[in-house]
Amino acid sequence: MLSLLDKYKDVNDIKKMSLKQQEQFAGEIREFLIDKVSKTGGHLASNLGVVELTLSLFNVFDLNHDKLIWDVGHQAYVHKILTGRKDKFDTLRQFGGISGFPKRCESIYDFFETGHSSTSISAALGMARARDLCHKHYNVVAVIGDGALTGGMALEALNDVGYRKTKLIIILNDNQMSIGKNVGGVSKYLNRLRIDPKYNRFKEEVESKLKRIPNIGEGMAKYLEKLKNGIKQMVVPGMFFEDMGIKYLGPIDGHNIKELTEVLTSAKRVNDPVIIHIITKKGKGYEFAEKNPGKFHGIGPFNCDNGELIGASIDTYSKTFGNEMSRLAEKNKKIVAITAAMRDGTGLKKFAEKFPERFFDVGIAEQHAVTLAAGMARSGLKPVFAVYSTFLQRAYDQLLHDVCMQNLPVVFAVDRAGIVGEDGETHQGVFDLSYLTEMPNMTIMSPKCIGELPHMLEWALKQNYPVAIRYPRGGDAIPLQPLKTFSRGKWECISNKGKIALIAQGKMVQHAILAAQRLKDKAIDVKIISACFAKPLDKIMLNKLIEKGVTIITIEDNVIRGGLGSYILEYVNTTGRKVKVINLGFEDEFVQHGKTDILYKLYGLDARGIENNVLKTVELSHTF
Amino acid sequence: MLSLLDKYKDVNDIKKMSLKQQEQFAGEIREFLIDKVSKTGGHLASNLGVVELTLSLFNVFDLNHDKLIWDVGHQAYVHKILTGRKDKFDTLRQFGGISGFPKRCESIYDFFETGHSSTSISAALGMARARDLCHKHYNVVAVIGDGALTGGMALEALNDVGYRKTKLIIILNDNQMSIGKNVGGVSKYLNRLRIDPKYNRFKEEVESKLKRIPNIGEGMAKYLEKLKNGIKQMVVPGMFFEDMGIKYLGPIDGHNIKELTEVLTSAKRVNDPVIIHIITKKGKGYEFAEKNPGKFHGIGPFNCDNGELIGASIDTYSKTFGNEMSRLAEKNKKIVAITAAMRDGTGLKKFAEKFPERFFDVGIAEQHAVTLAAGMARSGLKPVFAVYSTFLQRAYDQLLHDVCMQNLPVVFAVDRAGIVGEDGETHQGVFDLSYLTEMPNMTIMSPKCIGELPHMLEWALKQNYPVAIRYPRGGDAIPLQPLKTFSRGKWECISNKGKIALIAQGKMVQHAILAAQRLKDKAIDVKIISACFAKPLDKIMLNKLIEKGVTIITIEDNVIRGGLGSYILEYVNTTGRKVKVINLGFEDEFVQHGKTDILYKLYGLDARGIENNVLKTVELSHTF
Repeated sequence: MLSLLDKYKDVNDIKKMSLKQQEQFAGEIREFLIDKVSKTGGHLASNLGVVELTLSLFNVFDLNHDKLIWDVGHQAYVHKILTGRKDKFDTLRQFGGISGFPKRCESIYDFFETGHSSTSISAALGMARARDLCHKHYNVVAVIGDGALTGGMALEALNDVGYRKTKLIIILNDNQMSIGKNVGGVSKYLNRLRIDPKYNRFKEEVESKLKRIPNIGEGMAKYLEKLKNGIKQMVVPGMFFEDMGIKYLGPIDGHNIKELTEVLTSAKRVNDPVIIHIITKKGKGYEFAEKNPGKFHGIGPFNCDNGELIGASIDTYSKTFGNEMSRLAEKNKKIVAITAAMRDGTGLKKFAEKFPERFFDVGIAEQHAVTLAAGMARSGLKPVFAVYSTFLQRAYDQLLHDVCMQNLPVVFAVDRAGIVGEDGETHQGVFDLSYLTEMPNMTIMSPKCIGELPHMLEWALKQNYPVAIRYPRGGDAIPLQPLKTFSRGKWECISNKGKIALIAQGKMVQHAILAAQRLKDKAIDVKIISACFAKPLDKIMLNKLIEKGVTIITIEDNVIRGGLGSYILEYVNTTGRKVKVINLGFEDEFVQHGKTDILYKLYGLDARGIENNVLKTVELSHTF
Repeated sequence: MLSLLDKYKDVNDIKKMSLKQQEQFAGEIREFLIDKVSKTGGHLASNLGVVELTLSLFNVFDLNHDKLIWDVGHQAYVHKILTGRKDKFDTLRQFGGISGFPKRCESIYDFFETGHSSTSISAALGMARARDLCHKHYNVVAVIGDGALTGGMALEALNDVGYRKTKLIIILNDNQMSIGKNVGGVSKYLNRLRIDPKYNRFKEEVESKLKRIPNIGEGMAKYLEKLKNGIKQMVVPGMFFEDMGIKYLGPIDGHNIKELTEVLTSAKRVNDPVIIHIITKKGKGYEFAEKNPGKFHGIGPFNCDNGELIGASIDTYSKTFGNEMSRLAEKNKKIVAITAAMRDGTGLKKFAEKFPERFFDVGIAEQHAVTLAAGMARSGLKPVFAVYSTFLQRAYDQLLHDVCMQNLPVVFAVDRAGIVGEDGETHQGVFDLSYLTEMPNMTIMSPKCIGELPHMLEWALKQNYPVAIRYPRGGDAIPLQPLKTFSRGKWECISNKGKIALIAQGKMVQHAILAAQRLKDKAIDVKIISACFAKPLDKIMLNKLIEKGVTIITIEDNVIRGGLGSYILEYVNTTGRKVKVINLGFEDEFVQHGKTDILYKLYGLDARGIENNVLKTVELSHTF
């Protein structure tokens, strides 16, 4: 017999199922998710948490007209299953396969692309306003997690939502988690709302009783009137939302399809903005994920039966960073660590446990994190903000305006710099060398291997100005001898033979070395330079190369536009000397998802790609 | 007899004054402010609004230990008067004179520099946490306006503040204004708190009455208990803040020194975070500013007696933009305008009045504004987000992640690009060519004169991808013939003589033309090219120049690092041809305040500076 999942064809099929069938369908989807993600890896826990919600949304709305925006988007797997991509799940997050995030090129039902947190309310409000101005009548629904709600732009959007009373449905998917446990005042506030899910019923009871209060004297009458209104404020949760002009419904059990369907149906009838507060469990229905939702947030392939990861764990930059932070913090009490909801991902778990009073998880709030660090640095602490390159983009202005302008000694541990692989376009960290080098007073470092990161961190913490250390996701391709001491703007010359210099930064030094080995087999010697500082440049070393007329090939895992190679080219150009410079890096486009090795190859940034560029250069110089 | 202002010496002098003297002092400061700012220009209305607040802060706190952070900072004039800079007010905002914002180089009492909105709570929280970890005992006070409170990072910070219960005093200076009238749900919420300033007294009354309610039966008892708590929520304003873990005091009359002193004194004793809600009037004490606080927000020199601006009003890019928006919007109903609290500054006042339903002021919320526009564009509207270059920095990630990645047709009217002059370092728009050119799919235009802006806007609105049009503050240096039709990436060749090409963008074309006139007198011909597109580059024209071996001099009012010149250099370099390129622009540093003409000269970007660079090139080519 065909399962419901096998029979499912059209986005409106769910409407034809009985409640019992829908519940059975939810179970089948869960099994499917666990089975598929255990093989490909991906975001499991958040998707298990929204199975019933997604079914109910498809049950109540007509996706051929209505627009559904998934904040962050890594919880859109169920949506993908229900919109014709079930059979592609074996290719999830693989090069050429389906993305782990909503993509317009995959389906008309992925109406808006997401990836970074907290964008959905803004985008949905834009659509809702467009609908009204164009006199159309579809529904717009944004699904946002309570974690994403701490992001400033979501709060900016809420502020705007209530103002004009545009019809819009916001679903607050409250699982009390970002990737880790949620923090902050908004979380506290939601917690208050969560405490008694029977608030609304209680309210009705109280109001009916209030009506029966005997007359207790003239003076009390007017107070009692106010009292009745007061009651509403006490018992109607979400009064803050209501005060802002957004109708609040909830809290609702987010795993109860019947309740969800009811509340969504009534929300559809409201002509004002409405926020539906639903309570879900991250990892719901898979015991290992329920117990450890953090681990199953974004996970590699794992064994379904015991929840254990498949494949040996490797030494990563993040882990090494975290260990060194703990070591340095023992010696220096002024060192504090800041994260924007990425305690585990950035490797700070150990630090957080060891130094709870010096560890600050500010929630998904990169802007605040940077200026908080600026304030700390101004008052004598040594703050380190550990953040993924792609998320640091959120704090461009704070970096420039609050840190660099005052030249404050904040250390930025820029993790996941370069391509991150499977998460794809929205998460590639390929812009930081461009946006950081354009900031006056910023110093930028990149370790050529994991072993170099601790020494860089120690050095950076001794400086009296901002330092960003950028390093990639994962581990090393080859082992290298780390540099242990640094001097601002001084590069490391690893090999000094030949008339071509490979100037690489970070992990690209490893690729350059591998390329050099291949070239050596062809009897071509190249210089290898680790640009351990992307800013300031090592002008002394560059001048020497220029004097000798050496051809410079720059290699970076960043877009070429404005990156390290561009910066080097600008300098070489100011000398007025005619030296050939070739810039290798990512083209002026967004880099799709897939294994990093495949992507390096695609963009000619693997050993063979670098080798080919050198060979072309050699050929060209022969023809002249 | 010496006035109190003449006698005032030390930051603690106010403590020695009687209340009556303090009130007299406030009056003297107001007169001083009106007199000085009428001559230099500057931010008047906001400073008149905080006279009593500043005096009270100096009265209660010891600025030799306590830290005072002014959000935005343009309301710190009174603070400057009280901290040794009274006699420098004739130089306010002039080149080499005192800044209109807090600057650490001016005074130890300017503990943290501000300029952009909404940073103060983050910075202050950082200081407060540093204080606690270092076992020190000073107070940290952040003063933030209700307008700035709508900025996402301020909300991110509030979310964090309540979480750890760090002692910190936040003063919410509520004047119901940003630069213009405030908007949004937060404003609505504050409005509720504002309605009855006697809330607290009322609360006490109610509670005492409640105690006297007769026993009205068993069943009611427990409800009454809840009722009492409910009352608190109704009558204690700021329950949202309290729920987030921040103690709320207020609202307080912000022009009553006695009340302010009392509430600040009690706030000092609280060991938790506290927010003091004070109500002030922008422009207080100067009738013209009270009536028209928007006009007196940031104003040029004016006549004290009638509040009229001195000096003829000129045609500005902003005004022209606004007019053209209204004209285009009549023809095309899909055009909508978005501003982040800058309706008047961006020239959109007329549009807003004519098309209220198509005008969206989202508050100080650039991140939300950009993604809102993305959502609108996705659903068929033609959104134009008018924003100052320096504030668009706040939305770097949204530009990249929400607009460019989906290649959505949003038009960005990037006003105040280049140097803005008197506002100085925090407001110069000298990074946008760098950060916008590094974004895939972005198209960037710059009109060479005011007359070109309407045509560019019309063209941009017809495209099906993101277009940013950057233009400067103020008006033109010389009149020019506008280009009326455009083709993506095609530049305008204004003059085609000689072996040197000046490739300039935007207003810099005018400087280039003036330089060319000076050179002509010296019998040197130069080509003049208006790079009306900073992205994509006109490769056809560049190829022609390269083929002819023309020397290229790029001229932009942006930092050189990563800017247009750098982009051109990158392209020239990829051709492998040996052509001399010289990049003119701002050095890798923050550009101080002063008249734009002085700053252009300082950085060699005026006609003479460009001329000198050409002459140097000519000399060099002669020596070879």
